[in-house]
Amino acid sequence: MIVILGAGATEEQIQQVIAALEQRGYGAHLSRGVERTIVGAIGILEAEQKQLLAQQLEAFPFVERVVPILKPYKLASREFHPEPTIVAVEDLRIGAEQVVVMAGPCSVESREQLLEAARAVKAAGASMLRGGAFKPSTSPYGFTGLEAEGLQLLREAKEETGLPIVTEVMDPRDVELVAECADVLQVGTRNMSNFMLLRELSRASRPVLLKRGMSSTLEEWLQAAEYIMLGGNERVILCERGIRTFEPHTRFTLDINAVPAMKQLSHLPLLVDPSHGTGRRELVAAASRAAVAAGADGLLVEVHPHPEKALKDGAQSLTPEGFAEMMRTLRPVAEAVGRRL
Amino acid sequence: MIVILGAGATEEQIQQVIAALEQRGYGAHLSRGVERTIVGAIGILEAEQKQLLAQQLEAFPFVERVVPILKPYKLASREFHPEPTIVAVEDLRIGAEQVVVMAGPCSVESREQLLEAARAVKAAGASMLRGGAFKPSTSPYGFTGLEAEGLQLLREAKEETGLPIVTEVMDPRDVELVAECADVLQVGTRNMSNFMLLRELSRASRPVLLKRGMSSTLEEWLQAAEYIMLGGNERVILCERGIRTFEPHTRFTLDINAVPAMKQLSHLPLLVDPSHGTGRRELVAAASRAAVAAGADGLLVEVHPHPEKALKDGAQSLTPEGFAEMMRTLRPVAEAVGRRL
Amino acid sequence: MIVILGAGATEEQIQQVIAALEQRGYGAHLSRGVERTIVGAIGILEAEQKQLLAQQLEAFPFVERVVPILKPYKLASREFHPEPTIVAVEDLRIGAEQVVVMAGPCSVESREQLLEAARAVKAAGASMLRGGAFKPSTSPYGFTGLEAEGLQLLREAKEETGLPIVTEVMDPRDVELVAECADVLQVGTRNMSNFMLLRELSRASRPVLLKRGMSSTLEEWLQAAEYIMLGGNERVILCERGIRTFEPHTRFTLDINAVPAMKQLSHLPLLVDPSHGTGRRELVAAASRAAVAAGADGLLVEVHPHPEKALKDGAQSLTPEGFAEMMRTLRPVAEAVGRRL
Amino acid sequence: MIVILGAGATEEQIQQVIAALEQRGYGAHLSRGVERTIVGAIGILEAEQKQLLAQQLEAFPFVERVVPILKPYKLASREFHPEPTIVAVEDLRIGAEQVVVMAGPCSVESREQLLEAARAVKAAGASMLRGGAFKPSTSPYGFTGLEAEGLQLLREAKEETGLPIVTEVMDPRDVELVAECADVLQVGTRNMSNFMLLRELSRASRPVLLKRGMSSTLEEWLQAAEYIMLGGNERVILCERGIRTFEPHTRFTLDINAVPAMKQLSHLPLLVDPSHGTGRRELVAAASRAAVAAGADGLLVEVHPHPEKALKDGAQSLTPEGFAEMMRTLRPVAEAVGRRL
Repeated sequence: MIVILGAGATEEQIQQVIAALEQRGYGAHLSRGVERTIVGAIGILEAEQKQLLAQQLEAFPFVERVVPILKPYKLASREFHPEPTIVAVEDLRIGAEQVVVMAGPCSVESREQLLEAARAVKAAGASMLRGGAFKPSTSPYGFTGLEAEGLQLLREAKEETGLPIVTEVMDPRDVELVAECADVLQVGTRNMSNFMLLRELSRASRPVLLKRGMSSTLEEWLQAAEYIMLGGNERVILCERGIRTFEPHTRFTLDINAVPAMKQLSHLPLLVDPSHGTGRRELVAAASRAAVAAGADGLLVEVHPHPEKALKDGAQSLTPEGFAEMMRTLRPVAEAVGRRL
Repeated sequence: MIVILGAGATEEQIQQVIAALEQRGYGAHLSRGVERTIVGAIGILEAEQKQLLAQQLEAFPFVERVVPILKPYKLASREFHPEPTIVAVEDLRIGAEQVVVMAGPCSVESREQLLEAARAVKAAGASMLRGGAFKPSTSPYGFTGLEAEGLQLLREAKEETGLPIVTEVMDPRDVELVAECADVLQVGTRNMSNFMLLRELSRASRPVLLKRGMSSTLEEWLQAAEYIMLGGNERVILCERGIRTFEPHTRFTLDINAVPAMKQLSHLPLLVDPSHGTGRRELVAAASRAAVAAGADGLLVEVHPHPEKALKDGAQSLTPEGFAEMMRTLRPVAEAVGRRL
Repeated sequence: MIVILGAGATEEQIQQVIAALEQRGYGAHLSRGVERTIVGAIGILEAEQKQLLAQQLEAFPFVERVVPILKPYKLASREFHPEPTIVAVEDLRIGAEQVVVMAGPCSVESREQLLEAARAVKAAGASMLRGGAFKPSTSPYGFTGLEAEGLQLLREAKEETGLPIVTEVMDPRDVELVAECADVLQVGTRNMSNFMLLRELSRASRPVLLKRGMSSTLEEWLQAAEYIMLGGNERVILCERGIRTFEPHTRFTLDINAVPAMKQLSHLPLLVDPSHGTGRRELVAAASRAAVAAGADGLLVEVHPHPEKALKDGAQSLTPEGFAEMMRTLRPVAEAVGRRL
Repeated sequence: MIVILGAGATEEQIQQVIAALEQRGYGAHLSRGVERTIVGAIGILEAEQKQLLAQQLEAFPFVERVVPILKPYKLASREFHPEPTIVAVEDLRIGAEQVVVMAGPCSVESREQLLEAARAVKAAGASMLRGGAFKPSTSPYGFTGLEAEGLQLLREAKEETGLPIVTEVMDPRDVELVAECADVLQVGTRNMSNFMLLRELSRASRPVLLKRGMSSTLEEWLQAAEYIMLGGNERVILCERGIRTFEPHTRFTLDINAVPAMKQLSHLPLLVDPSHGTGRRELVAAASRAAVAAGADGLLVEVHPHPEKALKDGAQSLTPEGFAEMMRTLRPVAEAVGRRL
């Protein structure tokens, strides 16, 4: 790390910085410029020590800025682990050549609804089934899912269609229960910084699909992945799902830059959720094509047999026909970038 | 609610909308304009029904927009409850004439550190002690608090100084434990949409200090308050703590507009956290004065006896001297708006 | 428009709203709900009148909200003009089957630099040459372009390569001068709301490439297009170039949703600028593929023969080799969506 | 500046960086760390050179980041000019003890309207009259001002009331015309990065009130001020007027942090515009008190004798009574922070 001292830093202040570095085991490399004095830290520290030291140096009133040199994550970084990680889910290999499409309703509402959706997405070429049994709802008056019953229905849908299941877990107390049924455990955007949940998931027996927080930077997102990996669960799948901006036409702004950026910063597989990323059914197919063209390893798409009867997110859900049409236009795009659906 | 149909909506589509309204028990009020057809819903529905119906109408491809007429929260709204709510914490009355200042370190680090801070903030005029025993940390390598031991130290500090305690709870499993020690349970910005935690807090025996999510709208924030109130805990204290914007000079952008806006939209007491709201010690006093001048009912301020040794947030922590100086400049501002410290 | 009155609006206030509508020539359609009174405006007003009336109604303290029914633009809207507009530039037809790639250096720096860039982008398949003679610079110490000399060099480059020219105009006084040399006049992101410039361009003899303001909504962007069209210049080409968000890893966040959204809202052709949209050379090719997959009619790409010697934007400029490689990977994507380069 | 090279930078690449520094007249200070190599630039360069060099170094593919040490502005900086600047306008001293309140209608609409407003704001204690003769309008169908006639009316209002005038100039061609009538030339938020206008204003004979761009960082804002100062006009008054964020309840988010931050970064006087900063009349008084409590040197407030008849911005305009009431509550706050109205 590099410590930039404010204009007019005294000799004593410079020595305080050097002492703080040396006390932690760093060497100090002093550079007295015309307008600023700069102290570089030399050596390697444990991540815990480095993080703390940077904060403490910044708290000196005479320190103008501390510039970190390395990224604040390691296990998730491409620099540390140059080969792409492939997460296996039954026969699927997420992060390999195939673009993995996970589709299904926002929420599990009934056996009939779920099975109808599951058959439709399978017929159109989806590889996994999505569907929420535990649902976050901004309004306390909204639908919050069928919970255990929903999990049971997901299991039935898997039995019938063979599609592996991805479903959300919101409460650290439910991780085990959900892991019994789900093939992949989803962390929603509102829980990306729910560190108690992440810690529990780091000990889970299932891969984790980690959605980006709607106002999280790429760096914060990778640190959330690091939480899960540091605890021992290295099977993390990232999912860009739109960020909050000033634009009101769409529900969120899908950050397409994040796709190639994250593939460079990290070795983890990366999906895109075009349903939340746009919030409008009529934009989903175009956003999906963009995601695959930009290098996404897969998609997470909301499909409902009857969107106008959906208990949640109907306006952004594709109909089965819309989904089939999307898949038809997606296939040549996947091939154009050397992938397949 | 008002349903605006797309240009060229057919008679059959109009009837579908009317039928959907009538099926739920609403009357329908049709207005055929030159360029659009509009259907108004007449009657009163339960919040659950209304929320769902609006979503389902929006999912019709021929519906352009659904415009809600009423706010999506009720218990938290000033319209429903015109009188200001005052939350009593021991002798303090939060939301009444006194501007309540809660101060203390970001994290409880040791007995010595906490007591030194507690004595200092009390001497300078604080009314409550803040300090985290359970700490969210963006980095998995960062400090996450002394946990149960930290709670015990907070209890000691209260015994010695008499200051009531506000401290954060992050895990639904810890609510009871924290409630045994804390006088006010704090929900941090990363947990405002942790609905499992909110649900648990709605059954807690302590008032809840609900920080605004860093990318939450005022409406979402009030819905989070509604969660807690709907479950039976009406003692909610709001806390504006800065939102995420494009400006990099400050850690967050303190939304000062939120102060008068929330006092108009809601009857709940409202605090401001100038430490996170700015992220820079040198801006905290000015932001505090602004908050009180704008009508805040109190402040939540980070104070550390030795910021350069803090395990967290040193750069935004005031020293005891800085805090005392802030209090001196704050007092006349409070009086200028008819309040007292 | 629909006028929603506050709770407890009196009969007299309702009549004031009706009178204001009738005075302008609207009919009023009253709906007294249980909790709110709503007045709908019936009839057709000139855009000027409607805009003003909505503002004035909102200024009544007892009016809660005015909900507009129609979009605030007409000439630019798909609803008013369902057929896509194709802008012809010499032999090119922008908005038709071909994906039009405009490439070249950020700034014209010298004859040698420009010609080297022009030859390279032509060889790799670009259809137009970009290059700034007048350059906005955030810093007053930065490079602001060769001005008239730069225009002359662009003309030479066109003579040699046959590539039509797109170049920026920043000052209403320069429109005529730039129009003599350029085939397309570019409005930069910082000038999208420079209405004096837009007005001048509405009388220009050249098509206008209108970049989105970095914090402009889609609706504001279309109103800026409407300015130019209303003055008589209907040859407007839109260009998404990234918006300002909280994410620091990229210079801007390319709003990929804007591509299909604008193609639905408007009939105007739409380009994407992946160079500014990402600000990082290593992301440009992926963003370009995403743009074309999402339906963009073309690209505006920065290419510099020696980025490390560029006077501006070197970090986001492709080398000629990088550009050629990007074109190679772009071709199959264009074909996958039924277009060609 | 500090140049951080990517992991695995070769000896040759390091030498390329050193050569680039030395070629410009810098010394190079090399620090080979375990994980990164860092090159510090030693010496003083002209701002133009430094700006360019940083960009060019960043364009090397093997350079990870260039960290600037000094701010990209000088004339506007507090470091370079520690004493506060006071801008004199007739008898007023903007930036001194008095909090200068500039008030009046958004737009000049008629003699009657302007004079009624001018008399009212004077009676309530305003020190200057604001009012737009040239008005930016997002919609091409909106009101764009009375132009020359409006200037004439402002002159009359000044003659009658003695209040100096601040009014907006939008077109570089109008600077001279507006300067004949106005005491202070206002640059609106949409023109903060209109560098052609800034350049013209740098040669004007009047002080410039420079509003912050609605998506501009503090650093960009200070660079805009630097443009004007560098050209010779050092009488710049800054004005915070709200930034664009995700929050829809208010028109903009007033960045109150910017007040103390800018007073620390710069010596220039700073006003706040609570009318645009909130967009809602009912929040203006609270925002004004906050601004003064935070250290603003003045306010720019919209007041209209009949907001519901205003041609622009009625919903955020105070009535004369509302303004008088605001001034009454503002006075004790000003005194509480050692100022006066």
